[in-house]
Amino acid sequence: MQIDILTLFPKICEGALAESIMKRAREKRLAEVRVHNIRDWATGKHLVADDTPYGGGQGMVMKCEPIFAAVEALRTPESKVILMTPAGRRFQQCDAARFALDSHLILLCGHYEGIDQRVIDHLVDEELSIGDYVLTNGAIAALVVTDAVVRLIPGVLGDEQSAADDSFSDGLLEYPHYTRPVEFRGWRVPDVLLSGHHGEIAKWRRQKALKKTEKNRPDLLDGK
Amino acid sequence: MQIDILTLFPKICEGALAESIMKRAREKRLAEVRVHNIRDWATGKHLVADDTPYGGGQGMVMKCEPIFAAVEALRTPESKVILMTPAGRRFQQCDAARFALDSHLILLCGHYEGIDQRVIDHLVDEELSIGDYVLTNGAIAALVVTDAVVRLIPGVLGDEQSAADDSFSDGLLEYPHYTRPVEFRGWRVPDVLLSGHHGEIAKWRRQKALKKTEKNRPDLLDGK
Repeated sequence: MQIDILTLFPKICEGALAESIMKRAREKRLAEVRVHNIRDWATGKHLVADDTPYGGGQGMVMKCEPIFAAVEALRTPESKVILMTPAGRRFQQCDAARFALDSHLILLCGHYEGIDQRVIDHLVDEELSIGDYVLTNGAIAALVVTDAVVRLIPGVLGDEQSAADDSFSDGLLEYPHYTRPVEFRGWRVPDVLLSGHHGEIAKWRRQKALKKTEKNRPDLLDGK
Repeated sequence: MQIDILTLFPKICEGALAESIMKRAREKRLAEVRVHNIRDWATGKHLVADDTPYGGGQGMVMKCEPIFAAVEALRTPESKVILMTPAGRRFQQCDAARFALDSHLILLCGHYEGIDQRVIDHLVDEELSIGDYVLTNGAIAALVVTDAVVRLIPGVLGDEQSAADDSFSDGLLEYPHYTRPVEFRGWRVPDVLLSGHHGEIAKWRRQKALKKTEKNRPDLLDGK
């Protein structure tokens, strides 16, 4: 799979892409992630990528021309063009699973006040938001999507991690984890986890996962 | 304000913190953001920060000791300790606004399968999730929170950006933006935006914002 990130701030992404799972996916050639500066497709003496909004208002708007030029230079008939914007549909784990089957994603990162609407109307396949908060620009959001997608590509996760036990995979948050030491500052690991009774452990974990979901995310239990 | 990020992968954060708004906030001394490697507080010959889970199961669990040592080395009576985890409550814009008033945040990033529950029970003030998807580790989530919070600190955003017009600030997604040229590949900027009638422009923008919210995030309109 190939992911191209288009941003005005490529350096925001570079550290994250060189580490951990993303690094491994690239080394194993399971995912190729490239970061591009939209300004490389800007023209004119000052390589302007943004301008003031028609109709007035604060902030700058990203211009059509460099974005169309960048996407058209990179895309193939298989490409999916995704705009990262707080005004998008909410990105969820099912989207990550869906994108993990794609061969080419182009992640377009907004910045400043917004992006010219003609980009959304005529170039973008999906508008996605990573959550109900506002970021200074979409580059961090593109990292979130890249990370969530890449780890689902078969072969990327090693034995030390598992996608199957994750929060959300069964509609519940994860149960509590414990590791050594058995006692830390007087706080002991629950006896059931030391018992060796797999049935009891599974029951305890399920109960705890339900309780945690009820406390932190009751919305996930609606309709169960 | 000071933010300390505790992670096993500090390099994931470094690029993002050196760019754009975060860079400016640090240069203006409005926010000091530091990234620490949890392994620096691990002890023993191999500086082990994780171990296998009690009760069995896949994956590794982050150990208590280095995390307690790290947080206790950094925290003051004013500190808020936040764990980034998919099992947390959902981080929203109102949380960003709340944290922007704090003087010290410690953002603790999970990795591997999870973190020893005693950290959550006895050290952490809040568990937060940036969205309903799973990331390889919490460092990218900590960047999201840092970015969303730092931009709300008075003086950080310059004239070219505005926090007041953002998506979510009035419960609606943002209206469409347009900038030069007036016509691009035959697609024209809507006439109303060129009219100079501020009342009409405001009305058009409100209608479009409503329509966009209805399409991409109907949940935001519930109860309106």
